[in-house]
Amino acid sequence: MKFPKSLEELIECFKLLPGIGEKNAERLSFAVLKFSDENAEKFSNSINNVKTKIVKCSICNNLTEDSEICSICSDDTRDSSTICVVESTKDLILFEKSNAYKGKYHVLEGLISPLEGINPEDIKINELINRIKKEKIKEVILALNTSMEGETTSLYILKLLEGTDVSVTKIAAGIPVGADMEYLDALTIQRALEGRNKLS
Amino acid sequence: MKFPKSLEELIECFKLLPGIGEKNAERLSFAVLKFSDENAEKFSNSINNVKTKIVKCSICNNLTEDSEICSICSDDTRDSSTICVVESTKDLILFEKSNAYKGKYHVLEGLISPLEGINPEDIKINELINRIKKEKIKEVILALNTSMEGETTSLYILKLLEGTDVSVTKIAAGIPVGADMEYLDALTIQRALEGRNKLS
Repeated sequence: MKFPKSLEELIECFKLLPGIGEKNAERLSFAVLKFSDENAEKFSNSINNVKTKIVKCSICNNLTEDSEICSICSDDTRDSSTICVVESTKDLILFEKSNAYKGKYHVLEGLISPLEGINPEDIKINELINRIKKEKIKEVILALNTSMEGETTSLYILKLLEGTDVSVTKIAAGIPVGADMEYLDALTIQRALEGRNKLS
Repeated sequence: MKFPKSLEELIECFKLLPGIGEKNAERLSFAVLKFSDENAEKFSNSINNVKTKIVKCSICNNLTEDSEICSICSDDTRDSSTICVVESTKDLILFEKSNAYKGKYHVLEGLISPLEGINPEDIKINELINRIKKEKIKEVILALNTSMEGETTSLYILKLLEGTDVSVTKIAAGIPVGADMEYLDALTIQRALEGRNKLS
């Protein structure tokens, strides 16, 4: 005895999502069963739409819909001499939310990770270098995770840009604003110390 | 700056699900974006299907697909003189998985809860009583939660069947198999004691 076929199928689909197991998938599927017809249709359509309508921006690899070039690349008011290199569109959105950056971006598709078989040519680094050569870029800001993979990727890009007159910078590592010092790890403390700023 | 429109819509839909907040909805939506076309189509279709194909069994109120009467009600090999009353299809599946019951079911749509405005007429109790009058039922097994609402609902059904020659039973409350005694609450211990069985 199992659930009706469509329900079983929906449960299987929910189980494909990260962090969702059998019990949770059942719970979510029953919740969908109780959705209004309107919401269920919206849910079903939006899954279809994200797969069919969303494409990668042909310049910066950001996600875009209804056009080949994303809203940031086509925004002439932004500083086009600076490129901020991020790991994913999610990270790009975080930077945009901070309102602290008005240049352009380049979205990688992950980070270099020999263990997982992810090589530089898999994550749009060549496209970044081509862009830097073609467009008039003054500064490349590396805004990648401070993980081993992030550091490797930053270093790799830095090496590739050696000898060019592009300035390469890296966002500061240190204590997060509002964080409680006692919960910080030794490496973060070390980075915060190394990056200390002169106040007087 | 936000995510592309379809992605925003998908995030909103995930947020309608219980226990899924903003961050989690974003994470799941990005996972859908990485689904294979086949899986995305399956996901989208199954949401549609559960809403359009699944109906309630006209006899026992269980979920059924492709027919008006569910597979349990139409199974002649099952004992049709016994009805096990459960709160939901989920509970029915649990009983089926136990392989301990070969009678029929009646699926309520929740439990009586004056606080939440759920009255007996909202949860298919009338349909249960009509069934008991019409079919030749010998035993009604109450298999509802031991919560206040479950107990109220059990008591209500018991009252309605007073004076009829139908035997009404309730599944045993006690210590769950494999549970560690020290984590059990006082009420469970009390019920386990009240329901003690003579061994010799």
